[in-house]
Amino acid sequence: MIEGLPGLGLVGKIAVRYLARKLKAEKLAHLYSPHFPYFVVVGKKGGVRLLRGAFYYWKNKVSESDLVLFTGDSQAQTIEGQYEISEQIVDFAAKLHAKTIITVGGYRMEAKGKPKVVAAATNRELLEVALKANASIGPAGNPIVGTAGLILGMAPFKGIGAICLLGETRGYLPDPLAAKSVLEVLQSALSFEVDLSELDAEISKAERMVTRLRKIEEKRALQAEETRKEEDKRVTYIS
Amino acid sequence: MIEGLPGLGLVGKIAVRYLARKLKAEKLAHLYSPHFPYFVVVGKKGGVRLLRGAFYYWKNKVSESDLVLFTGDSQAQTIEGQYEISEQIVDFAAKLHAKTIITVGGYRMEAKGKPKVVAAATNRELLEVALKANASIGPAGNPIVGTAGLILGMAPFKGIGAICLLGETRGYLPDPLAAKSVLEVLQSALSFEVDLSELDAEISKAERMVTRLRKIEEKRALQAEETRKEEDKRVTYIS
Amino acid sequence: MIEGLPGLGLVGKIAVRYLARKLKAEKLAHLYSPHFPYFVVVGKKGGVRLLRGAFYYWKNKVSESDLVLFTGDSQAQTIEGQYEISEQIVDFAAKLHAKTIITVGGYRMEAKGKPKVVAAATNRELLEVALKANASIGPAGNPIVGTAGLILGMAPFKGIGAICLLGETRGYLPDPLAAKSVLEVLQSALSFEVDLSELDAEISKAERMVTRLRKIEEKRALQAEETRKEEDKRVTYIS
Amino acid sequence: MIEGLPGLGLVGKIAVRYLARKLKAEKLAHLYSPHFPYFVVVGKKGGVRLLRGAFYYWKNKVSESDLVLFTGDSQAQTIEGQYEISEQIVDFAAKLHAKTIITVGGYRMEAKGKPKVVAAATNRELLEVALKANASIGPAGNPIVGTAGLILGMAPFKGIGAICLLGETRGYLPDPLAAKSVLEVLQSALSFEVDLSELDAEISKAERMVTRLRKIEEKRALQAEETRKEEDKRVTYIS
Repeated sequence: MIEGLPGLGLVGKIAVRYLARKLKAEKLAHLYSPHFPYFVVVGKKGGVRLLRGAFYYWKNKVSESDLVLFTGDSQAQTIEGQYEISEQIVDFAAKLHAKTIITVGGYRMEAKGKPKVVAAATNRELLEVALKANASIGPAGNPIVGTAGLILGMAPFKGIGAICLLGETRGYLPDPLAAKSVLEVLQSALSFEVDLSELDAEISKAERMVTRLRKIEEKRALQAEETRKEEDKRVTYIS
Repeated sequence: MIEGLPGLGLVGKIAVRYLARKLKAEKLAHLYSPHFPYFVVVGKKGGVRLLRGAFYYWKNKVSESDLVLFTGDSQAQTIEGQYEISEQIVDFAAKLHAKTIITVGGYRMEAKGKPKVVAAATNRELLEVALKANASIGPAGNPIVGTAGLILGMAPFKGIGAICLLGETRGYLPDPLAAKSVLEVLQSALSFEVDLSELDAEISKAERMVTRLRKIEEKRALQAEETRKEEDKRVTYIS
Repeated sequence: MIEGLPGLGLVGKIAVRYLARKLKAEKLAHLYSPHFPYFVVVGKKGGVRLLRGAFYYWKNKVSESDLVLFTGDSQAQTIEGQYEISEQIVDFAAKLHAKTIITVGGYRMEAKGKPKVVAAATNRELLEVALKANASIGPAGNPIVGTAGLILGMAPFKGIGAICLLGETRGYLPDPLAAKSVLEVLQSALSFEVDLSELDAEISKAERMVTRLRKIEEKRALQAEETRKEEDKRVTYIS
Repeated sequence: MIEGLPGLGLVGKIAVRYLARKLKAEKLAHLYSPHFPYFVVVGKKGGVRLLRGAFYYWKNKVSESDLVLFTGDSQAQTIEGQYEISEQIVDFAAKLHAKTIITVGGYRMEAKGKPKVVAAATNRELLEVALKANASIGPAGNPIVGTAGLILGMAPFKGIGAICLLGETRGYLPDPLAAKSVLEVLQSALSFEVDLSELDAEISKAERMVTRLRKIEEKRALQAEETRKEEDKRVTYIS
């Protein structure tokens, strides 16, 4: 099972949603909860639905590793809700006899070049697989917040191994580049292949957005600078 | 069933309360909950009561569409409370064999002229009825917050269709004008007739209130302007 | 049953605690709850105890109206906790076959002279008794917040009449004067007699405290004024 | 049983963790809860685990007072969680037939010289033992916040005596010096002996940290002073 809910840079959600679409995984079940935010979203044609999570199933025709994918609209809104939803996901994984749960998300870090992927796992074997697939070990003492983390904490109680893959991201905006790094590690670790080229369009779009925001920021800084100079002149004149 | 709790511009509450009064609907049941604010309100003669919701019943003598109206003092105060109260209302509707639930409320928008009414629904047929009755479809991705939204999300699980009608309102003050727009769509969609003229008195009162507040605001702005000019003179004098 | 938990000016707690002491009422039961603040208090001799409420019983030897008094360390800390504790108190009253519950507390109002007592009740007869005992009806629409209010809202569901007596208080400091007004109304309404003279010592003490705080406040205002004058001089000198 | 969760100056956790290590107590049980913060921590080798509490058992080979030690990663995050976790600990102590529960922690106080240890207890005998072991009684009315306090409040309901030992600490930084004071009282009261010399290294480290922070603070203050002087000169020049 691969889990990716919205979080830093939406990395987990972007990765799992992309995977579900490219693999043409079919919807298996929904997860509703009073711990999600208390609103409904309106669709394009005036339809509505509750916030929810969704499980998707993908039959692997090559090897025996079928996949169940989980993503959703939102994290739980309270501490107790976070624990309950994570437990529900792990319970559902146990019911489906999942061997491993992989949680994916973002890791706040100013990445230079291609974002790296940091891994943590409930056992050494899983971690080795991720390290061979080009992930690295993050600094000790680091917290993994939310569902991606709690699932790792809970899975061993159900006899399920679990691993977390976090892509480096600044985290302020949706970050498909970090999601791509995570998907590359996933592919290599699970030995399946998905065309990631469609993500590149999203990445270019996100980069243009960042560039635009940076220009707005610089312009604002310049104006602030000039205002300050004007004020300085005035003060000089007074003296 | 028509639901309207306090929210933006009190639109939902004003509309349903007006309807219950004009239809002389009779009280059917109360809804109490520990998720309402923790105070009681004192009445005119020193009586008190808990905050609550109230269901009213109206026997339709012309066609077969009887109405149950629901309104109340307050929304639930916590996320879990919002879900629980919405579920209680939908359960009660199911118990009464309601065919449709209509939730009404406000939609934050600077309306030009007569406030429009935005609709969202759990199925296409219901939406069509509203569009014919002069409602329009709101922008996709818009959240409907609170009980008016959650009821729409939950009703299909009980086999009940549901639609939400939101009147455009600035939302800061009680807005009977937006409530009137909502009631006009309701009348046309449900083919019943209620005299809306008494709302006009409330509307004039609300408009006078807005005008008064605007004048106070303008006066304050003028004074601020003059204070600034005075200060500018003084600075000039220093230099 | 007479209930008085800490609230505005501690009026309810001061009144009920004084009554329990003067009537030599004996302790009947404790109320513990996870909705009270999460600390214990240390006593004079290094002992400790959880925060709690306490019920006291007083056998009326003259008439048949025995009293159960309830007071405690704190209000509940959450909305749901407020409802639960109020319900527990009403349930206990029902179990004891209490005929009436009287809740007492403070009412925020700058009192001129002797603080008045405002009453609200679940039925007209109870209210009449209070009005005859020199209480008055408060303004309609006023909320009664917390346990004193919720008990009034809940008691009728158990077939118990309830009335609330609120003494006018500024509410910032413990206000034994307001508590005395409440106790006078209580005495007159219930036809029992308790010597209130010991409250006068507390009242004088509270008044001295208020006077001292006012002087500190005035001194601070004066200093602020002088500082401002100094600054004005300086500005004048610049120009 | 000796309990010490993180709190003021981490005194309780430092003391119990040190004790468990030096006594080579063996792990007995874990306490997991949805009231702990919703993240997992990453270990040195990329492993993860939920936040939790841990019970350790130490067989006393000299006298018959075996010890169960309890410490953990965090306090509960909500009021109700605080009550629930404290109750779980007391229940577990009852199940193990513990005769006494000792809770340890910090007490906010600018200590002069060696930090004192303040005690509060559920009965006089326990308090006497602590006073003989060089603890003192704290000021009445003082609250003991969190698990260390609530356990004291709850233990008597299970027929268990309980005492709290709080070391004076400024509380901003981990304070092994305060923990040492607490351990000295513990040793003397329970008549067992543990080498406390390893704590001295931690104490020196903590002191160097405080000194460094103080220097940074002083430097900052000096700079602020100079900036102010510069500004004063400028103002003088204007005039």
